[in-house]
Amino acid sequence: MDFLHTMVRVRSIDDSLRFYCQGLGLKELRRVDNQAGRFTLIFLATKSDIRRANLTGEEAGFVAGLPLLELTHNWPPAGGGESAGLGAEIYTGRRNFGHLAYQVDNIYEKCQHLMDMGYIINRPPHDGRMAFVKSPDGISVELVQKGDPLPAQAPWVGMENEGVW
Amino acid sequence: MDFLHTMVRVRSIDDSLRFYCQGLGLKELRRVDNQAGRFTLIFLATKSDIRRANLTGEEAGFVAGLPLLELTHNWPPAGGGESAGLGAEIYTGRRNFGHLAYQVDNIYEKCQHLMDMGYIINRPPHDGRMAFVKSPDGISVELVQKGDPLPAQAPWVGMENEGVW
Repeated sequence: MDFLHTMVRVRSIDDSLRFYCQGLGLKELRRVDNQAGRFTLIFLATKSDIRRANLTGEEAGFVAGLPLLELTHNWPPAGGGESAGLGAEIYTGRRNFGHLAYQVDNIYEKCQHLMDMGYIINRPPHDGRMAFVKSPDGISVELVQKGDPLPAQAPWVGMENEGVW
Repeated sequence: MDFLHTMVRVRSIDDSLRFYCQGLGLKELRRVDNQAGRFTLIFLATKSDIRRANLTGEEAGFVAGLPLLELTHNWPPAGGGESAGLGAEIYTGRRNFGHLAYQVDNIYEKCQHLMDMGYIINRPPHDGRMAFVKSPDGISVELVQKGDPLPAQAPWVGMENEGVW
């Protein structure tokens, strides 16, 4: 199990890169624009951490040993205005923190273990690739299958999502 | 500049270690009980990250290349009841996320640079050791001087705190 990233939600990409890159000195490694989901993900790391992980810019993504900061920017709806549920309030201390993420050896085994302990898997690993669970204090934790996704299988494939994460 | 840790506030140490250690599989590396401040800090990391950083339990603390999760538990006041401002609400999505932390080569230069860009240093580095600043979306970022603290010096030593962080 390896730490991958801390995710925070950001209202403005420009304002955020000014702060995190120009201000603090982090470097942008990867950017994903998702047209269908209407969001942008930007992955940052310190130059020292990148050197230590011995990566070039091209390789640098989800790599064990490279702690990333993930910025998530939700686009306004195509029709204009604020995204539903994504107004000013979420950026002032409620939903501005996103999640912790860890890479795991076997996502089904990890989720089964957590369920056996009585935790709810808010987003079950339908796809053998990703799951979300929450800490006792409501901190979202993302679990990501190491390497290729596992084959989809029961009971996970049909398990319903529960709550928010 | 190196990433150090993500900090989250926790209501119960037992509930949290059950989730993060017994559930997820992280390992406790270090614990600080601060009687005067009435808080406990617990530092966790994945076993894989500890192996990669090539550390034994004794050495493992704030080390570049070892991404830590810091749990902060505020004790109830000596007289009983909830801590002031630390009631149930903070653990349900407002203040349950703590901060990101980065180690920097020169904390005065980094803070001066951020001030020159117009950011407020909410907790100036009075002690040459630690500072807090906030992202445009209100995410607290802790800056920690690498190695020994720098000598206290003007204008930092007399600079007032501003707001919360």
